[in-house]
Amino acid sequence: MNGAESLVRTLLSSGVDVCFANPGTSEMHFIAALDKVAGMRCALGLFEGVATGAADGYFRITGRPACTLLHLAPGLANGLANLHNAKKAGSGIVNVVGQHATYHLNYDAPLTGDIEGVAKPMSHWVRTSMSSSGVASDGADAVQAARSTPGQIATLILPADASWAAADEVALAPAPTPPRAVSPDAVTAVAKALRSGGRTVMLLGGAALRGKALEWAGRIAAKTGCRLMSEGQNARLERGAGRVKLDRLPYDVPGAVATLKEIDRVILIGAKTPVAFFAYPDQPSLLAPKECEMVTLAQGEHDIESALEELAHELGASTTAPVIADLQRPALQEGKVTPEGIAAVLGALMPEHAVVVDESISMGRGFFPVTVSSAPHDWMNSMGASLGYALPVAIGAAMAAPDRKVIAIVGDGSAMYTLQALWTMAREGLDVTIVILANRSYNILRSELAKVGVGAAGRTALDMLTLDNPNLDWVALAKGHGVASGRAHDLGEFAKELSRGLASDGPYLVELVV
Amino acid sequence: MNGAESLVRTLLSSGVDVCFANPGTSEMHFIAALDKVAGMRCALGLFEGVATGAADGYFRITGRPACTLLHLAPGLANGLANLHNAKKAGSGIVNVVGQHATYHLNYDAPLTGDIEGVAKPMSHWVRTSMSSSGVASDGADAVQAARSTPGQIATLILPADASWAAADEVALAPAPTPPRAVSPDAVTAVAKALRSGGRTVMLLGGAALRGKALEWAGRIAAKTGCRLMSEGQNARLERGAGRVKLDRLPYDVPGAVATLKEIDRVILIGAKTPVAFFAYPDQPSLLAPKECEMVTLAQGEHDIESALEELAHELGASTTAPVIADLQRPALQEGKVTPEGIAAVLGALMPEHAVVVDESISMGRGFFPVTVSSAPHDWMNSMGASLGYALPVAIGAAMAAPDRKVIAIVGDGSAMYTLQALWTMAREGLDVTIVILANRSYNILRSELAKVGVGAAGRTALDMLTLDNPNLDWVALAKGHGVASGRAHDLGEFAKELSRGLASDGPYLVELVV
Repeated sequence: MNGAESLVRTLLSSGVDVCFANPGTSEMHFIAALDKVAGMRCALGLFEGVATGAADGYFRITGRPACTLLHLAPGLANGLANLHNAKKAGSGIVNVVGQHATYHLNYDAPLTGDIEGVAKPMSHWVRTSMSSSGVASDGADAVQAARSTPGQIATLILPADASWAAADEVALAPAPTPPRAVSPDAVTAVAKALRSGGRTVMLLGGAALRGKALEWAGRIAAKTGCRLMSEGQNARLERGAGRVKLDRLPYDVPGAVATLKEIDRVILIGAKTPVAFFAYPDQPSLLAPKECEMVTLAQGEHDIESALEELAHELGASTTAPVIADLQRPALQEGKVTPEGIAAVLGALMPEHAVVVDESISMGRGFFPVTVSSAPHDWMNSMGASLGYALPVAIGAAMAAPDRKVIAIVGDGSAMYTLQALWTMAREGLDVTIVILANRSYNILRSELAKVGVGAAGRTALDMLTLDNPNLDWVALAKGHGVASGRAHDLGEFAKELSRGLASDGPYLVELVV
Repeated sequence: MNGAESLVRTLLSSGVDVCFANPGTSEMHFIAALDKVAGMRCALGLFEGVATGAADGYFRITGRPACTLLHLAPGLANGLANLHNAKKAGSGIVNVVGQHATYHLNYDAPLTGDIEGVAKPMSHWVRTSMSSSGVASDGADAVQAARSTPGQIATLILPADASWAAADEVALAPAPTPPRAVSPDAVTAVAKALRSGGRTVMLLGGAALRGKALEWAGRIAAKTGCRLMSEGQNARLERGAGRVKLDRLPYDVPGAVATLKEIDRVILIGAKTPVAFFAYPDQPSLLAPKECEMVTLAQGEHDIESALEELAHELGASTTAPVIADLQRPALQEGKVTPEGIAAVLGALMPEHAVVVDESISMGRGFFPVTVSSAPHDWMNSMGASLGYALPVAIGAAMAAPDRKVIAIVGDGSAMYTLQALWTMAREGLDVTIVILANRSYNILRSELAKVGVGAAGRTALDMLTLDNPNLDWVALAKGHGVASGRAHDLGEFAKELSRGLASDGPYLVELVV
């Protein structure tokens, strides 16, 4: 056994059995070990951001880290943007990054670079395994770090000689540490705050948005009359028929400020203090008024479900019925494409337990209310806002949940950053329907240009915000990657194309010209 | 005037008048300034690696830095791999990276990240402009850093409030510092070494491979009988008819070791001590034998042309005729695709003063000797070996030399990392002919798998090395990006398709199935 094989065996014994790979020479021993050791499902991405984004999506569904396999400093660099998104989403990932043999680093060969330096800004945990005998325990430590609550980005750097030299150990990552308990005092304080009157928002994030935790939050809201909201973006939110209804904090600063203006108190439950996405001249960074009280029940590292359960008991809300969405699919719309029309078609056709990966940016803000009473589904946003998250995340979600339909809704500008993901979907036969919202511009930036106070765009600025001249042909791009596709120009055509995708077992791309 | 405008004016007055951009909200004031201030040619890339690679190509042709415009930490991260390549090539680039407003950074908004941390591994110079009044002088410092000899990567981080607040300065970067002179002693020592007999290689790199410097080197070689070679990869090498003939050090370790085995002395002129690309078990990192003497005449920061001129005078070689390639185009070949056949077609059809951007990896090592007597041309390699360099570099080269034909020869695996470059070529109407060598695998890795000593690939390993199932359809991918294209299956079809591309004024892609 060599170091690479000891790492593969350690990952498998520690429950990491999916690998999203874009390997190079320094990773060949890891690749070879996959032939010797059964059990690692390995999917190739043709760009590293596909691999890291897929690992994010996999974690969001399973709560378990996958590993990535990346090539030296530039390979890791190509994966950083989606690691940024994963880090902000609290997704656990084990990155295995090949490195030159330790003795070769002196020579400054072409691919030599500062891998630890590249890793640090987007990783919680970084280590270089300096010899084959330590690879197994380093690997187990990496898995342990990735399995923290919330998940963490762990980057293990594996020099070629640590990979190819003899090793005899297989390590086992310790069982995940349970999430931190919220103190009884915090629960009591929040209960007191909820009883004290005034207009209160319970702002939910992370694990509060799913399963029992969400149910407890619904009971508490029904009992106390407080308003239930989620953060503006959410890693995975369970919603639709049978789930607790809640609103989402608006993205735009004036909208969010207006929503929170009359609020006396915000209870943070797995959510952070609401802040503006960007600073704008003459607009606040903090979205709630100064006099609004911020009370924290639980943060990302806490046992959020238990805290909510205790809070419900304390408030006598244990058996209060939450406000649940009834199944009421929107009616299909026809004619001209509008944001509400897109949402109606989506909400009407979405199958039960679909996973919606939403990177609709400028078009999609109105999708949320229209789909609240559709069939039960999960909704995922980009948490780090680096464009190009949706297609890779859809890969990971589809591999994690092969029995569920994944629907990726993504602006054309966003999709272009990681379009190589289409090929991996085709190769792995993943059940993903992709909707490209082809507005042929960075439409979000047109409104931002106005918001930052520089007025209308002139010729040069417009050229930087438009994706026309030439238009991207997404039907051809899909074909080039081996993915079936169709184009829609109105809502009727969209319904037909979306149905075709949803009826397919493999990937299908709909270019919706908007 | 605001900070952004003072930066645009500073860049222009300092000679930086081309911008490769992929902007976001935090860059909107810079974009708006481009409408107010004439003179900056701005090309949009749909992925940041396109922008950074294009800036590398622009520098390689002009010797002048372009700027890039990138969005926060993840945007810069997406550009890092090609910054790595540019750094290794000695290309000067000014990166302008937007940042949140300084007062907004406390709030950890979704896009917040450690931009300086991301920049450092791939930059020589990093600075955050903390207020609008300092932006101009920071910008001038960045240009000065980028214009060092050799060029450097300078990353200027521009917070939104430094961008939008008032500024009244325009700064001018000082004239570039002349490159360091080589000491007369070094010249004398090298002359003595060349006169002392023994088998000597003059190993040329960087600025030694072009213009007068190359001519002086040719005279010296003709006079002293030493062998003239270039490094295995070169940022830009002038060759073909009328240029000094020289060999290239082989890429593969056994080939390079065999080449240097009988050599007593290597004179390094803008070149580094030859080292293996990767370490392999039981193969050396250093390619020359221990007893081979390494003598440095000049390094990248030196005035290489003057050093060679002085050396030629010292050796009495000032009027010695160098060995020059005569025009002798290879004959067109037909039939089955072979590496030599590809090179023959290329060498036969290549127009005068073409710029060949070579990322042919596994197929292309034999292209070099076959094209040595073709029409005069420039040949560019990836210096950092991070895949996805060729298409972006071709953009920059084509913008820098609109009167020259750019030919990008790139493996399908490599091209996929930055295929978005095709769209920028179409939009800017760039005169680039792209040859995709579609071997439908990471072919290089198959041989590497054997070299690192793990033997033949099994099923899982093979899946990580092949790009089939499904095959990429490059004709469709080109169409998707608005680029005309054709496919060739044999050398006759390749000649026809390549001719079509060379006859076109805009981009044309040839998928050569190999």
